[in-house]
Parts: sequence; C-alpha cells; structure tokens
Amino acid sequence: MSVTERLRRNADSIWVSILNHPFVIELYTGKLPLAKFRSHSLQDYNFLIGLVRSLSFLAAKAPRLELSKMALELAYRTVTREMRNYGSLLRRLRLSISDAERETPNPTNLAYVNFLISTSSLQDFWKGLAALLPCFWSYQEIAFKHRAKLESNRVNLYRKWASVYLTGDYTALVSRLRSAIDRSGTDFRALKYHFLLASKYEFEFWDSSYREEV
Amino acid sequence: MSVTERLRRNADSIWVSILNHPFVIELYTGKLPLAKFRSHSLQDYNFLIGLVRSLSFLAAKAPRLELSKMALELAYRTVTREMRNYGSLLRRLRLSISDAERETPNPTNLAYVNFLISTSSLQDFWKGLAALLPCFWSYQEIAFKHRAKLESNRVNLYRKWASVYLTGDYTALVSRLRSAIDRSGTDFRALKYHFLLASKYEFEFWDSSYREEV
Amino acid sequence: MSVTERLRRNADSIWVSILNHPFVIELYTGKLPLAKFRSHSLQDYNFLIGLVRSLSFLAAKAPRLELSKMALELAYRTVTREMRNYGSLLRRLRLSISDAERETPNPTNLAYVNFLISTSSLQDFWKGLAALLPCFWSYQEIAFKHRAKLESNRVNLYRKWASVYLTGDYTALVSRLRSAIDRSGTDFRALKYHFLLASKYEFEFWDSSYREEV
Amino acid sequence: MSVTERLRRNADSIWVSILNHPFVIELYTGKLPLAKFRSHSLQDYNFLIGLVRSLSFLAAKAPRLELSKMALELAYRTVTREMRNYGSLLRRLRLSISDAERETPNPTNLAYVNFLISTSSLQDFWKGLAALLPCFWSYQEIAFKHRAKLESNRVNLYRKWASVYLTGDYTALVSRLRSAIDRSGTDFRALKYHFLLASKYEFEFWDSSYREEV
Repeated sequence: MSVTERLRRNADSIWVSILNHPFVIELYTGKLPLAKFRSHSLQDYNFLIGLVRSLSFLAAKAPRLELSKMALELAYRTVTREMRNYGSLLRRLRLSISDAERETPNPTNLAYVNFLISTSSLQDFWKGLAALLPCFWSYQEIAFKHRAKLESNRVNLYRKWASVYLTGDYTALVSRLRSAIDRSGTDFRALKYHFLLASKYEFEFWDSSYREEV
Repeated sequence: MSVTERLRRNADSIWVSILNHPFVIELYTGKLPLAKFRSHSLQDYNFLIGLVRSLSFLAAKAPRLELSKMALELAYRTVTREMRNYGSLLRRLRLSISDAERETPNPTNLAYVNFLISTSSLQDFWKGLAALLPCFWSYQEIAFKHRAKLESNRVNLYRKWASVYLTGDYTALVSRLRSAIDRSGTDFRALKYHFLLASKYEFEFWDSSYREEV
Repeated sequence: MSVTERLRRNADSIWVSILNHPFVIELYTGKLPLAKFRSHSLQDYNFLIGLVRSLSFLAAKAPRLELSKMALELAYRTVTREMRNYGSLLRRLRLSISDAERETPNPTNLAYVNFLISTSSLQDFWKGLAALLPCFWSYQEIAFKHRAKLESNRVNLYRKWASVYLTGDYTALVSRLRSAIDRSGTDFRALKYHFLLASKYEFEFWDSSYREEV
Repeated sequence: MSVTERLRRNADSIWVSILNHPFVIELYTGKLPLAKFRSHSLQDYNFLIGLVRSLSFLAAKAPRLELSKMALELAYRTVTREMRNYGSLLRRLRLSISDAERETPNPTNLAYVNFLISTSSLQDFWKGLAALLPCFWSYQEIAFKHRAKLESNRVNLYRKWASVYLTGDYTALVSRLRSAIDRSGTDFRALKYHFLLASKYEFEFWDSSYREEV
C-alpha cells in the first residue's frame, strides 16, 4: 500500500464523517440553504489566502526545483483561477471580493490556517505537503462519491461549484500531490499526525460552515 | 522623487560600474567569448533557483493578497518561462539543464543567493522586495542603454538573450515592482541598505562571470 | 496613553472575562477542583513548548541585538526555570513530564500555539511581541487583582503557583516587554489585531481548562 | 566511525588549512599584529549576531524540546557571556561595542552569516546544526593543537582569548553538539555539504581577518 493510501486509511473514520456531513450532502443534493453556502464562501475565500501562504512557504523550502515548481503552480493557480472563480461565485451570491475581505475568519478557519502556516514554516516540506493534502484530496473524493446526486440537483450554483472537482485537471492535480509524497521515500509515521489533524480540520471547516460559525 | 528613484540614485556609482562592465559591453557588442557566456549561463540557472525561493518567502509573508500574487507571478514566471528559455539557451550552448544542475554555484553566486534568502526570511516584505529589485531593474536598464549595440552584434544567441529585456512585458514587470514599493509608504532609509547591497552583488555577479569564477 | 495601555483598554471586555473566569477565581480562592488544575497543567506544559518556538522565531528576526536578547532570555527562562517548576508541580500532582509530553494539546491550545507561531514566522517582530504580550501580562494582572484571595486559600499548590506572578522579577519582565513595545514607535493600529486575538485565546485557554477539554 | 567523525574527515584538507593559517599560528605564538586582531574582533562581534539569529531559528524548529533547549542555551550563552567577554576584549583594544556595531561586516563575514541564516531557515534542524558545528568545533581543535604555543605567548590578550576554548565547559559544549548529531540517525550524506561549506567559510573568515578585508 502506498504512503498516501495508508494516510487515507488511517484517517478513514474522519473521512467518512466528512463525506456524510450534512453540508456536503445537502450541497450535492441541492438542499443546502443558500445562507449556509454564502457563509461558507466568504470563509473559504479567507482560507485560500492562508493556503497560498502555506504553499509559498513550501515552495521556498522544497528540496528540489521540481517540487518548488509544483507548490508554486498550486499557489499560482489558487491566486489566479480559483480566486477568479470566487469572484464570479460571490457575484452570483450578490456578494463581492470586498465582502469576503471584510469577513473575519471564524475560529475554526483561523485554527486550520494557522496550523497549515505553522506546519509549513516549522516542519519539513513533506510534513507540510501531508498537511495540505486532505484539503485537495477530500474535495475530489467528495465529488466522485456524490456526483450522481448532482443530476437531480436544481441549484445551478452548486452544480457549477462541484463540477470543478470532477474535471480531469483536478484529478491530475490530486494525483500529482499524492505521487510526490509516495515517491519521496518519506515514512507513513512521519506524516501521520499532520494528515490526520488536517483531516479533522477539514471536517471542522464543513461543520463550522453548516453552523454558520462567526 | 520616488523612493525607487532615490534608491537608484543612491546606488548610482555601482550601477555605472554595472552598465560599463566588460561582460555587459561585450555581450551587447557580440565580442564576449562564448566560454564566459557559458559559465554565466550555468551559474545564472542556479541563481534563479535561489531567486524563486526568495520570491516564495515574500509571497508567504506579503501584507496583502495582491502583493502575494505579484511575488507568485514572478516566481511562477521564473520556474516556467525563464527556466524553459534556459533550457533552449543551454541546448544552443551544447549544454543541458542537467549540466546546470550539476554546476556548483560559485562563491559570489552563493553569497548573493543567501543574502536574498536571508533577507526575505528575516526581514519584512518591503526590504525583501528592495533586495530583489536591482536584479530585475538593472537588466532592463542595461538593455535600454546598450540596445543600439545589438544592431551590429553578430551573435544570434546574445541578441536573442538580450531581446527579452527590451519587451513591453519585461518593462511592465519592472514598473510593477517599482510601483509597489513607491506606493507602499516605506521610507527610503528603511530600504537603502538592501537595495545597495543587492546592487553590489549584481556587479559582483557579472564580474564573477567574466572571471569564470569557480 | 502608551501603546500597550491602548492595547489593554481596547481588549478590556475580554480581560474582564479573563479576570472573572471561574477557573481563575477558584484557583485563587482554592476552590478549584484538582482535576481541572491537573488538566490545565498538562495542557500548559505543551503550550510552553509552542511559546518557546514563537519566542525563538522573534529572537531570529529581532531588529536589534538588544531585542533578540530579550526574546532569548524569555525563551531560555521558559525552557529552564519554568519547565523545572513544571517538573516539581507535576510531581506534586502525581504526574510527570512524560505524562505532559504524552498529553495531546486540546484544540484550543493548538489553535493558540499555531496562532503564535504563524504570527512570529510571518509577521514582523512587533506584531509577534504584541501577540505574546497578553499571555505574560494577564497572568500578572490576575495575580495582583486576586492576591488578597490567596490569604484564605488553603491549597498550598495553588498558592505556590500563583506566587510566581507576584514577584518583582515577574513584574520586571512584563514591564520590559511593555516598554519595548511602547518605545518601538509602532502604531497601536498595527498591533491591535494581534493583541486582541491573543487576549481571546487567553480567555479560551482558561475556559478549555475549566471544561477539561480534550 | 561516527557521523561527525566522517564529516570532520571529509573536510580534513580544509581543516588542515585552518589549523595552519598564519592568523591562527601567529595568534597562538603571540606574533599576530594587533591591527589584525582588532579587525578580527570587530568582524567577529558582527558574526556572533548572525550566529544568534541562526541558533534561534534552530530553536524554533527543533524536533524535540531537548534540542530546542540546546540551541537556546547556545544562543543565550552567546548574547550574554560571549558578548560580555567581547565588551571587555574590545575595551582592552581601546574599542567599544559601539565601534563593533558601526563596523560593516566584510563580504566574507556577510556570506558566511547569510549561509548560516539561509540554511537554518530553509533546511531541517540537522542540516542547520551541521552548518554551525565547524565554527564551534574548529575553535576547540585549534586550541588543543596549539596550546603549547601559548606558554611562550607574551600577549596577555591573546592568551586570555584562547584560554576559553581550552576549558572543560567549552569541550563539553562541542561534545554535546557532536553527540546530538551522532545520535540523531541522520545520514552523513545529508549533512556533508553543509559541514564542508561551513568549514570553507571558517577558513575564509580567518583569511579575511588576516587580510583585514573591508
């Protein structure tokens, strides 16, 4: 079994909770109240800013140029394409980037982002990458698990949002991250803690969105 | 006078030495021995790796997302377009990226890169940007000062290399960096040391290439 | 009004909640259940490890040697005297340093520590110091506000614990930190966010200890 | 053979050059011109400031508290005892700490310090420690190799300076650093580059002092 498969299996009970979280289910079925999605979007925009800082730290300390490039591509993709998508998403929600910037990150968001930044600044590249992996990977697993639900989902906004994580492009991105870790020679035990904790934060993030935590 | 104009003026004697350095003059007139250019190219490739690390640090700590994005664009441009250009440049010199990777950075190169990394990791974003500015800016000033010489330059390789720094794209990049500093409200005195020292390292880098320092 | 007085006043409602938190009151009156104090001690030991990392980051990036020295003295005091005190405190609680090391930091603890590390690694020295100040300062303010209660406090362990924060040595330490910020020329607005958020985490930490959060 | 013995052996030709450098020999025999020693002292004071930053970075990222403590003790010792010794040394040289602070680090000093800071900020704890080791260790080896020369050395100042590195306290410090690396399980190959380069910088530092590099 590859290292990332072991990491995934070791966090399985948390991932099951993520995959079945009411926010996730209702988002894919189309039953999620718009207020909860708005709250999530404003928080998530702020999360991305922290994600970019964390990826940038990893690009700075990557052991090889190829890995620095991978981290930079992810960070660059986030500040360009993802942020642009957020701009249009927020407009459809009658919100703006300025609204997102004015939004205070809620305690769960803050704890998650500071965990990522602290990990990428103090720990080595691989622990940092293991901490970032659940965020990217779980969005893909959610999308593939629940894609059949999208067919009867009547909320255009939710269908469009979810479709990103079903693209070949996104699948390739997750494979690239996993494969970097799997080929690194880093031991499962060295990464276990960071992958598990990040998985917990993923769950907490969905949960805080559902509770519209402020 | 803007802050970057004051920084430039304060480092004028060094910039004059840069603009008139034999490596620079002979590169633009076409009289530079190919061995010196090869040596420079192998070193410069290694310098870029350090530049990318330094830019990534700045992206991590930028005070605003817009500035993080600017640093990431520069870093991303470097690991993609610039590195690709190096690939084809090295091929024309009958060298490869592998040759460049095997090349040991010479002491001057190492000192410059470690100054950039140390500055971007310890100091604030603006001091870090001031340290990176001479590298980008002086290449532009060199190109505009000596562009007439390119007409009688018979070495295709040198003309092609130099042409990059005359493009509108490159001019816009330098303006963007300068304008970020000029609009930051940071005092000239806070940035003086880092801009001046980076200018000295720019001079030393050309000089080490001319001496084919190992 | 000095900058630190403004920071303190701006966070007043949170500080009032800290000063009146049941954990604090019961600790000083001697009515705190020992189980809650044990839980707090095990968590606090882990907090100190993060505090040391954060202080070390500040020592690395301090703008002047004198400030680097101040951060190092605090960090060194923490890993020597404070950790030693914890050793004997834990023994009286029939616990050991090993128990403390095995204890998983609870979510509140983790969020606080990662906020400190993220701040000291990404932000400038002064923001980092402003984030660390509530921890040191509030312990002193608590001790002076509630010291009369100690007279009728029958729990030796609590009295001994509290007495540290009433010493001239500790008062001098807090004054030194405040005075460094007050003489730095840094604006209140630049530090407001970090001082306020750290104050909130101080409150949350007491609260998590009272709830014996795991 | 232990890892540090292999590191030492791998750098042997440089260490031989260090041990036989005229600055070192003349310092121990008492024939070193005072001007060279003054120049060295002013530079070395500035080097120590960088050393402290580098040690602080390592304390921030140490994998275990015990190692964080070791780095902090070294950093704290440097900013207290070592800096105090420098104060009295400089006074005997009719110089002051202010003179040292005004002194511009020469290019060799700057390159060495920025290598240490860049290593401790980008690389893991062990590579950072391997980069710091030659500085501490070579001073001890120099002292033991040349201690017989001290008997006929008529310059009190030089004898007093050298005596520090012959103490049991200093020997214990070097042993502690070496033993930390030897027990870390880190591979010789992972540390080779940083130990070797630091050794070269040690040689260059003595050489720059002898040349009174500015």
